[in-house]
Amino acid sequence: MDFAGDAYRMLEAVRAQRPRVHCITNHAAQAFTADVLLAAGAIPSLTLAEEEIESFLSSSSALLVNLGTLDEQRLKAIELAIPLARDLGLPWVLDPVFVERSETRLTLASALLAHGPTAMRGNRAECGALAQGGDERAPLADKQAPVVAMTGQVDVIFGDDRELQLQNGHVYMSQATAIGCALSALIGAFLAVEKDALAAVASALLVWGVAGELAGEKAAGPGTFRPLLLDAVHNIDGADLMERAKVEERIS
Amino acid sequence: MDFAGDAYRMLEAVRAQRPRVHCITNHAAQAFTADVLLAAGAIPSLTLAEEEIESFLSSSSALLVNLGTLDEQRLKAIELAIPLARDLGLPWVLDPVFVERSETRLTLASALLAHGPTAMRGNRAECGALAQGGDERAPLADKQAPVVAMTGQVDVIFGDDRELQLQNGHVYMSQATAIGCALSALIGAFLAVEKDALAAVASALLVWGVAGELAGEKAAGPGTFRPLLLDAVHNIDGADLMERAKVEERIS
Amino acid sequence: MDFAGDAYRMLEAVRAQRPRVHCITNHAAQAFTADVLLAAGAIPSLTLAEEEIESFLSSSSALLVNLGTLDEQRLKAIELAIPLARDLGLPWVLDPVFVERSETRLTLASALLAHGPTAMRGNRAECGALAQGGDERAPLADKQAPVVAMTGQVDVIFGDDRELQLQNGHVYMSQATAIGCALSALIGAFLAVEKDALAAVASALLVWGVAGELAGEKAAGPGTFRPLLLDAVHNIDGADLMERAKVEERIS
Repeated sequence: MDFAGDAYRMLEAVRAQRPRVHCITNHAAQAFTADVLLAAGAIPSLTLAEEEIESFLSSSSALLVNLGTLDEQRLKAIELAIPLARDLGLPWVLDPVFVERSETRLTLASALLAHGPTAMRGNRAECGALAQGGDERAPLADKQAPVVAMTGQVDVIFGDDRELQLQNGHVYMSQATAIGCALSALIGAFLAVEKDALAAVASALLVWGVAGELAGEKAAGPGTFRPLLLDAVHNIDGADLMERAKVEERIS
Repeated sequence: MDFAGDAYRMLEAVRAQRPRVHCITNHAAQAFTADVLLAAGAIPSLTLAEEEIESFLSSSSALLVNLGTLDEQRLKAIELAIPLARDLGLPWVLDPVFVERSETRLTLASALLAHGPTAMRGNRAECGALAQGGDERAPLADKQAPVVAMTGQVDVIFGDDRELQLQNGHVYMSQATAIGCALSALIGAFLAVEKDALAAVASALLVWGVAGELAGEKAAGPGTFRPLLLDAVHNIDGADLMERAKVEERIS
Repeated sequence: MDFAGDAYRMLEAVRAQRPRVHCITNHAAQAFTADVLLAAGAIPSLTLAEEEIESFLSSSSALLVNLGTLDEQRLKAIELAIPLARDLGLPWVLDPVFVERSETRLTLASALLAHGPTAMRGNRAECGALAQGGDERAPLADKQAPVVAMTGQVDVIFGDDRELQLQNGHVYMSQATAIGCALSALIGAFLAVEKDALAAVASALLVWGVAGELAGEKAAGPGTFRPLLLDAVHNIDGADLMERAKVEERIS
């Protein structure tokens, strides 16, 4: 499978089709998430208002549900948006931020998983908190979210009885806020243009990881890294992906 | 009319008088909007709390009403702030974000226009959604907001039976979030120091457009563009405006 | 007293121990505050939801209470968090943003001071509004917050019958939003690793001020200053602090 080629084809589709991604996401991630989507060629919207969720979703191509700064307004927005997304046939991504630190959030995330997100992305601690019986992967991938991306120093993507490992990225990605949150939105943009969910998730992660490397090599710290990461998402081309992709399929 | 000279005079007045601009604006735009006002020499405030709107407006020189992420809290804040601004004699700017994507918001924006904002700024889709009978300009300019700025690749400003066209700016301005939102706040700062609303709006747009060019020439993408844009607003001088201004008056 | 040496020892402790700092803070400061904590090695959380405050505080090492954009949600979060912080023995920092512009906020800040924050940080106008009888320092330091940092061109720190003056920093720190707010969170991180509150506050201010100088020397304006400030917090070492520290103890 030509991961880099596929990823580039999808990125070009995002740039050409400009999918609208509605993001229910946390306070601290909103502005950066919108910037990442714009840099990739997609169009973000962020409203949480009950009266407006339907209008915005009706003209969107994907939905992000991020559980950070989970207040009453977000809870209501999520409750409305998920059945709507299903009715509209929109792909949706679950990002279970900090479920390992809040019982309320863990309970909600488990309930949302039962609604079958197209994909879930979390770090090892978040995926671990959601795993039943200690297995970080099987229960999620097999029964609920068709595709799960567990990101970290090495990213693991599993679904469809397949497992991919991706080793792109940069240490600054763990030293700046909302990097994972924004990736989850980018996954939404890729799902909007590609029906093979596993391929879409892997492609978004590859673009993000390679953009991180390009930015990290120019940055002098996690501060200058952030604007450079947006530049890299905007400027990245097929050759960057081809030369740098470190993706491996593991036979299970 | 010496647009560049006027714009520079007003920018210097903002830098000297440090007007306070109270901003009711969307989540994703709050931090950047505050930074733009500070970079220009103005002083931002952002509270949405019912109990505090009056205190903050009483010590402000202009008000921004931006309809992005329009939730109940923002609705109440807007409802309180607009009559207060009128009573206090403060100029106020309406920014009808995404009215083309939400019926609720379009209805509200139309109602707010009837309260006579000093100026309105929107992109072509937003102004189009608000236009009656398909004419993007006349209904707004003639009856309600005295001055309307419709921004895009070419900015059009109309009001007082006059129409200006402005061709400054940079493509990155459409590839980063909250750029238009922050411009609406900057218009507020200019209205705080200049009674001729058309001149104030044109000057804010000119400063913003030229700052965008200065930043765009140094940036490597829409990420590095943002901090450079703030630098440019802070550093811009009369010569920059003089050399680069592309403003044209059209006789109607 | 070796201020620079102490400050570096504490910064290294933050980097090694990675304290969790829960931040109740204003909209515009949330993302940058989280970035500053991450750049320093600490771990931020930002939720305001009533149901989650307890879980997050229980696994935190310090609390920030910032009064900016003070809405009902923040009021409830503050009301819950302060007694919890006391029960859990967590240090907490009060940042009385804009109390000089809102009677509601001033009344609340005075009430919160009576609950004995470990430290308070404000600018001259904010501290002035809270001072009784016009003395900006004595009433706060003696009776309520054990340590008060009044920041500005010169920072003054008082508490324990001692007074320090710190002259590090850069003018861009007053031309970008949330710089003071983020410093208050950084103080929280230092209080999490150091029991001597006066030393912790002074150290956080010294690290921040020197990081500001390092960033300011490279920046071309207040826009590029912000990412460079994060880089500087991440990269700063003992030699930077040693060479640049301008701290003076005043005998009272």
